[in-house]
Amino acid sequence: MDVDADFVMVKALEDGVTIIGLTRGKETRFSHTEKLDKGEVLAAQFTENTSAIKIRGRAEIKSKHGTMKSGKDM
Amino acid sequence: MDVDADFVMVKALEDGVTIIGLTRGKETRFSHTEKLDKGEVLAAQFTENTSAIKIRGRAEIKSKHGTMKSGKDM
Amino acid sequence: MDVDADFVMVKALEDGVTIIGLTRGKETRFSHTEKLDKGEVLAAQFTENTSAIKIRGRAEIKSKHGTMKSGKDM
Amino acid sequence: MDVDADFVMVKALEDGVTIIGLTRGKETRFSHTEKLDKGEVLAAQFTENTSAIKIRGRAEIKSKHGTMKSGKDM
Amino acid sequence: MDVDADFVMVKALEDGVTIIGLTRGKETRFSHTEKLDKGEVLAAQFTENTSAIKIRGRAEIKSKHGTMKSGKDM
Amino acid sequence: MDVDADFVMVKALEDGVTIIGLTRGKETRFSHTEKLDKGEVLAAQFTENTSAIKIRGRAEIKSKHGTMKSGKDM
Amino acid sequence: MDVDADFVMVKALEDGVTIIGLTRGKETRFSHTEKLDKGEVLAAQFTENTSAIKIRGRAEIKSKHGTMKSGKDM
Amino acid sequence: MDVDADFVMVKALEDGVTIIGLTRGKETRFSHTEKLDKGEVLAAQFTENTSAIKIRGRAEIKSKHGTMKSGKDM
Amino acid sequence: MDVDADFVMVKALEDGVTIIGLTRGKETRFSHTEKLDKGEVLAAQFTENTSAIKIRGRAEIKSKHGTMKSGKDM
Amino acid sequence: MDVDADFVMVKALEDGVTIIGLTRGKETRFSHTEKLDKGEVLAAQFTENTSAIKIRGRAEIKSKHGTMKSGKDM
Amino acid sequence: MDVDADFVMVKALEDGVTIIGLTRGKETRFSHTEKLDKGEVLAAQFTENTSAIKIRGRAEIKSKHGTMKSGKDM
Amino acid sequence: MDVDADFVMVKALEDGVTIIGLTRGKETRFSHTEKLDKGEVLAAQFTENTSAIKIRGRAEIKSKHGTMKSGKDM
Repeated sequence: MDVDADFVMVKALEDGVTIIGLTRGKETRFSHTEKLDKGEVLAAQFTENTSAIKIRGRAEIKSKHGTMKSGKDM
Repeated sequence: MDVDADFVMVKALEDGVTIIGLTRGKETRFSHTEKLDKGEVLAAQFTENTSAIKIRGRAEIKSKHGTMKSGKDM
Repeated sequence: MDVDADFVMVKALEDGVTIIGLTRGKETRFSHTEKLDKGEVLAAQFTENTSAIKIRGRAEIKSKHGTMKSGKDM
Repeated sequence: MDVDADFVMVKALEDGVTIIGLTRGKETRFSHTEKLDKGEVLAAQFTENTSAIKIRGRAEIKSKHGTMKSGKDM
Repeated sequence: MDVDADFVMVKALEDGVTIIGLTRGKETRFSHTEKLDKGEVLAAQFTENTSAIKIRGRAEIKSKHGTMKSGKDM
Repeated sequence: MDVDADFVMVKALEDGVTIIGLTRGKETRFSHTEKLDKGEVLAAQFTENTSAIKIRGRAEIKSKHGTMKSGKDM
Repeated sequence: MDVDADFVMVKALEDGVTIIGLTRGKETRFSHTEKLDKGEVLAAQFTENTSAIKIRGRAEIKSKHGTMKSGKDM
Repeated sequence: MDVDADFVMVKALEDGVTIIGLTRGKETRFSHTEKLDKGEVLAAQFTENTSAIKIRGRAEIKSKHGTMKSGKDM
Repeated sequence: MDVDADFVMVKALEDGVTIIGLTRGKETRFSHTEKLDKGEVLAAQFTENTSAIKIRGRAEIKSKHGTMKSGKDM
Repeated sequence: MDVDADFVMVKALEDGVTIIGLTRGKETRFSHTEKLDKGEVLAAQFTENTSAIKIRGRAEIKSKHGTMKSGKDM
Repeated sequence: MDVDADFVMVKALEDGVTIIGLTRGKETRFSHTEKLDKGEVLAAQFTENTSAIKIRGRAEIKSKHGTMKSGKDM
Repeated sequence: MDVDADFVMVKALEDGVTIIGLTRGKETRFSHTEKLDKGEVLAAQFTENTSAIKIRGRAEIKSKHGTMKSGKDM
């Protein structure tokens, strides 16, 4: 098990930010949706089950590729 | 399973940005299409099933090779 | 066992900061909630059981991606 | 399977840019051709089946060796 | 056994600083509490048994993510 | 199979640039010749079958040793 | 046996500095106490038996996280 | 097979530059001679069969040790 | 056997500097004492048998954590 | 077989420069002598059979330790 | 066998400099003494048999921890 | 066999420089003596048989620890 995989840091800048894990493997579907309220932070790894992570809503996102802001008006 | 593969960060700059996984192996075909609305972000890894990723529509893309912008007018 | 996984440092800036471990694997659910009072620090690793860490309340968070502040007014 | 191989980022600067995978092994032939319209981006790995990648048409290409522009007038 | 895991350095800035090891694995509970008087230093590793470390009281903490101060008035 | 071998980037600066793979092993002979027209780019790896790559005609070549220009008048 | 584990350098700045090894494993207890007189230096590794090291008294401590001073008045 | 061995880049600065592979092993003899005309470039790896590479004639040579020029008048 | 373990360089700044190896394992006791006269230098590794090294007397000590001076008046 | 061993680059600055491989193992004797004329370059690896390389005559030598010039008057 | 262990470079600054190998293992005793006259240099590795190296007399010593001078008046 | 061990570069600055390999293992004795005349260069690896290298006479020596000069008057 690869416990040392990459991870992203997501900080919600408004209520209702959603972080959605998409399944690894032949089928890609939503596996889990985590809701963040304004100011909450989630550190989320890629895993054996999750090879893509989708972020909806205004948020600050840090990864090894630098910082990004999500949200319609960012 | 290589959970620590490279990944790209894609931020949609308009509605309807599509991120398409192309299959690894002898045949290369579309395996999954993920739609992003304006402001949504997707962190997507290369996987056992996906060896190429296509981005359509206006977006900001970060990878270990730096930043690129997709879209006809970028 | 991967004892050398990534970890985050969380310092509570108010009473009642919660750090929640989310389970690795097919199901993602809360596995453990740790409460911090103002000024307390937690160093928390990703583990075989935890692939995501959620922080609620005002806190300073350090990881290999830099520093973030959680909390509604940060 | 080497999911963490090198990849190139290609951004089409005109319609009809083609990215062609050439087969690894004793015979080198075209295995797959991907067409990009203006503004589309493709992140494409070297794979077990592809050891060379050919780009036709005006494009910006990023790899670990830096940036190149393809196209007759670049 | 992974003797070369990450460690934190904790220096107590008052009497009664506590450093608490939290258990690795399905259940997270306090496994050990180490008390430091003012000026004492503890170098503590993550281990097969400890995947989180909690610090209470005024202290200076050094890890590979930099320096933090714990304590209500820090 | 070493999918992560070194590669060179070749951009043709005139029509008819040829990139020739030379066979690895006891006998060294031409295994494949790829023709590039002006502006086309080829990313080509060393492989199990190719241990040398010959470039004829005016081209810009990038590798981990930097940039070179081929061609009689370069 | 992991002979190449991390180590700390401790220099006593007064007589009677104590460096205490705490046991690795389910039980954490004092395993060894080394006394240093003023000016003495100890280089001490984490080991199969020791996962935490406690320093009492005025001392200068060097590790890969930098320098710290222990002692009530430091 | 070590497909990721070191390689040299050779650019001929005159017609008739020769790049000669010398055999690895107990006997060292010429195994292959590649002729380059002015402006041609060869990227050549050390291989299971070749542990030395000899360059005759005016050429620019790049390797991980930097750049050299061969030729009587260089 | 780990021949490539960390080592310390100790230079005696007075006669009678002692470098003492402390045993690795459950019991920590003195295993060897090496005496240095003024100006003598000892390069000493951590070993399968020695997990701590104690230096008494005026000396200059170099390790990967930098330089330290031992001795009451240093 | 270690195809990725260190290598030296030797450029002859006069006719008759000799590069001599000395045998690895219990006996050290000349195994191969390669003659270079003025301006010729040799890239030579250490191998399973060669653990020392001797250069006679005026030459420029590049290795990972930098550049040296051989020859009586250099 | 670990042929790639650390080594020290010792240059004698007077006649009669001695470099003494101390045995690895439970017993630490002198295994070999090498005498250097003024100006001679010895490159000496840690080995399966030698885990400490003692230098007596005026000498310049280089290791990965930097440079030291041995000798009473240095 | 470790073909990629450390090596030293020695350039003789006078006739009769000697480079002596000392045997690895329980007994340390001279195994091979290589004589260099003024201007000759030797690149010599540590090997399975040689764990120390002695240089006599005026020479310039390069290793990963930098440059040294041997010889009575250097």
